[in-house]
Amino acid sequence: MNTENSFFDADPFSRELGIKLISSSPGEAVLHLKVTEKHLNSHGTVHGGVIFSLADEAFAIASNTSGIPAVAINTSITYMKAISSGTLIAEAKEFSSNPKLGSYIVELYDQDREKIAVFQGLAYRKKPKQ
Amino acid sequence: MNTENSFFDADPFSRELGIKLISSSPGEAVLHLKVTEKHLNSHGTVHGGVIFSLADEAFAIASNTSGIPAVAINTSITYMKAISSGTLIAEAKEFSSNPKLGSYIVELYDQDREKIAVFQGLAYRKKPKQ
Amino acid sequence: MNTENSFFDADPFSRELGIKLISSSPGEAVLHLKVTEKHLNSHGTVHGGVIFSLADEAFAIASNTSGIPAVAINTSITYMKAISSGTLIAEAKEFSSNPKLGSYIVELYDQDREKIAVFQGLAYRKKPKQ
Amino acid sequence: MNTENSFFDADPFSRELGIKLISSSPGEAVLHLKVTEKHLNSHGTVHGGVIFSLADEAFAIASNTSGIPAVAINTSITYMKAISSGTLIAEAKEFSSNPKLGSYIVELYDQDREKIAVFQGLAYRKKPKQ
Repeated sequence: MNTENSFFDADPFSRELGIKLISSSPGEAVLHLKVTEKHLNSHGTVHGGVIFSLADEAFAIASNTSGIPAVAINTSITYMKAISSGTLIAEAKEFSSNPKLGSYIVELYDQDREKIAVFQGLAYRKKPKQ
Repeated sequence: MNTENSFFDADPFSRELGIKLISSSPGEAVLHLKVTEKHLNSHGTVHGGVIFSLADEAFAIASNTSGIPAVAINTSITYMKAISSGTLIAEAKEFSSNPKLGSYIVELYDQDREKIAVFQGLAYRKKPKQ
Repeated sequence: MNTENSFFDADPFSRELGIKLISSSPGEAVLHLKVTEKHLNSHGTVHGGVIFSLADEAFAIASNTSGIPAVAINTSITYMKAISSGTLIAEAKEFSSNPKLGSYIVELYDQDREKIAVFQGLAYRKKPKQ
Repeated sequence: MNTENSFFDADPFSRELGIKLISSSPGEAVLHLKVTEKHLNSHGTVHGGVIFSLADEAFAIASNTSGIPAVAINTSITYMKAISSGTLIAEAKEFSSNPKLGSYIVELYDQDREKIAVFQGLAYRKKPKQ
């Protein structure tokens, strides 16, 4: 398991949002985000785009651990609970992978381990794994 | 068609990202985002979370034009083309609506009208429309 | 516009369900299904799998009109209204296409043009279009 | 764990397809389908609508174990591997549930435990759980 990741470090938008990489290993990643006022929407809760971006970044890290560039082609997310403060946690795991495609599930929790959302991501490898 | 929208103005995350509301009308919204370096990912292209957030905000505006608070419960997005600079455009339209649920499609373009992504959103109204 | 389609005719499951091809043209297809008792679920309404299968077949026809085999890799569907009898209509349209991927939207109606569901499909071409 | 389920038994479309309920418990269900020629598509592989219907039925059983009627409002499925014969297995598990909504993941395997597809389902309870 790694707590350093040059792929993550090269991501300006994750830095902008304040996303922290907690750990990554082949096909997996755990990321955190400390909620601040800038992450909120008009309802006063964390913007769907923020929750999605954290999940999407966890998916990106998990699908790029092999070193073969993979790009997201389809993602879907179900939101179960709104959150207004504290720390958001994203845990990505590979469901299945073949030379061209990789499928991932990302579960999202708050700091009390309440389930916030679940995300499904499909990545495409431009240069197939050998 | 309105170019002012108090719901949009109250959204800190949209401001943070630099999203501009171009117009809104019942069940519809058009939003723009000028891409800058902070929106990029590790591949040097606009982060999926940014494209999603623009689509999600267009969906939020379109689904809240009735004045009845609606929250996103499920969204999915397909990415067809990467983009690294210029202006991203999101156009949201209601597919169907009933007192509890609303379904929306958001199409995303670059400034040359090339298709970038397509987004599907499902919103839930806590207090049903009368 | 064609009302004959050898690709559709070779599909045993569509025949089993009673799906009718109404028309197809490049990137588009219209299909009908007359609801019978065998299509119902435990709630007495048309099974989600039937509505999905009709949409999925419309997507398959629309994405294979080019003659280059395309397979579904991701689909999502939002159900807005239950239906118990009558004719279901699926209308598929290409959103965007590149040599490897094609993205499609399928709208589903009942015979009174009430909106039943909306479907998003992503297809992958094993042998890219030249 | 139950191998009898009156909700499943009342489903004409599942019977039509040849779906077998293997077991169910609160928030969970396992279903099997033996592939026959009628389940195939124009590519000679199991139709996406069949794989979806099996997943959707597993989701329906898992989300109705509480006895409170729940209806599907959104589902998405990623297909990782085609299958032409043998037995398809669907395993549904609840991700999260609240009085109005329930979110489920269904994993699909072939008889050799190869991953075929992954499905995400969102159900809505018309009469909320007390």
